[in-house]
Amino acid sequence: MMELWIGNRNYSSWSMRPGVLVNHFQLPVAQRLVRFDSFEANSAFKQTLRGVSPTGKVPVLLDGALAVWDTLAIAETLAERFPEHNIWPRDAARRARARSLCAEMHSGFTQLRSHCAMNIEASLADVGARLLREHAGIQADLNRLQAMWADALRDSGGPFLFGDFSNADAYFAPVVSRIRTYGLPVDASVRPWMDAVWASPGVQAWVTEALAEADFLDFEEPYRTQR
Amino acid sequence: MMELWIGNRNYSSWSMRPGVLVNHFQLPVAQRLVRFDSFEANSAFKQTLRGVSPTGKVPVLLDGALAVWDTLAIAETLAERFPEHNIWPRDAARRARARSLCAEMHSGFTQLRSHCAMNIEASLADVGARLLREHAGIQADLNRLQAMWADALRDSGGPFLFGDFSNADAYFAPVVSRIRTYGLPVDASVRPWMDAVWASPGVQAWVTEALAEADFLDFEEPYRTQR
Repeated sequence: MMELWIGNRNYSSWSMRPGVLVNHFQLPVAQRLVRFDSFEANSAFKQTLRGVSPTGKVPVLLDGALAVWDTLAIAETLAERFPEHNIWPRDAARRARARSLCAEMHSGFTQLRSHCAMNIEASLADVGARLLREHAGIQADLNRLQAMWADALRDSGGPFLFGDFSNADAYFAPVVSRIRTYGLPVDASVRPWMDAVWASPGVQAWVTEALAEADFLDFEEPYRTQR
Repeated sequence: MMELWIGNRNYSSWSMRPGVLVNHFQLPVAQRLVRFDSFEANSAFKQTLRGVSPTGKVPVLLDGALAVWDTLAIAETLAERFPEHNIWPRDAARRARARSLCAEMHSGFTQLRSHCAMNIEASLADVGARLLREHAGIQADLNRLQAMWADALRDSGGPFLFGDFSNADAYFAPVVSRIRTYGLPVDASVRPWMDAVWASPGVQAWVTEALAEADFLDFEEPYRTQR
């Protein structure tokens, strides 16, 4: 059976994307948690990944001797292996647009990502309000995200970005989590989609396990001293 | 006919990736150059892309009303549209690894990218030597790039990363160009591959056109005052 190695579900936004895919489509892929203790070379985390993940990072998908790293490559590989599920939209034009959105996410939105670290179980609305005042780039990132979501939803009619739940929704699930944690303002037009993503079974399964971790990692917590 | 809108061939590393694919596989896709004059909102560049590219950036692939932005989404879309060409390796495991390498490139190697801007026609070995001394991250990026290239070449036997020329080679062509421009040190084990990429017809066609542009853009030239 293939294995998906992931980090702490509460903190690891990149792990969440393929994890949600595996959950949602109930793929025969075992999820293996490698706890973040630190990212130093001598950490248990890095030692565990040595010889497994060529980048020393999670997520990584293992299929026998084959390691597939990086969320986009993992999504494409799962889509090929399990064509009975529409991990990408079935329609070619929608699929091309879904890939464009995911690729933009993959290398972009650095202000939101760097200042608003994913932290599923935290409630940091006061911090979010302060961060929005201090870093104009966060609002710019939010504006672009909402524009792309609204465009996709207008074309597809929802409830998910391209109609049925696809990798595009999984790919933005960590962003939905950040918006919730930091109480960031979003337009009413994208709220129903955000709620649908959050309520979807694959996301809820991930969130439930994240909340059960009860792990507090200082280096992932710029804004809190305890849970 | 589909159109690929690109920036200046001498400077636009992200445009080069799909441009090389189109060249190499002789795809029926017209390349349309949108000259970089500046990236301000009122620039001719941004005005030309308004209503065409959802991100206001190049490259963007247009197929009638459909816009596909971002190099990874463009590569996947071209691979689907032209399955008679092996834009990705035919073997599933090699394809998964090729996608992993490209995805890592897509979001990584920021030190090399930010300090060693692509500039095909320039010869900046003195600058490269200074940059290597001043920014340790450039060497770290080079080390990881060479490790991934060497791994792939060891498995495939070459001459290209996964045997025949694929999107993975197109994806690293701009990196090969940077290494050449800045005279950066690379191990002998990857030199033959670098030379093969540089000599490949799709790359050579791109380079020839880049050299013919004879355009000098101050904001793309941190190290020169003229050609």
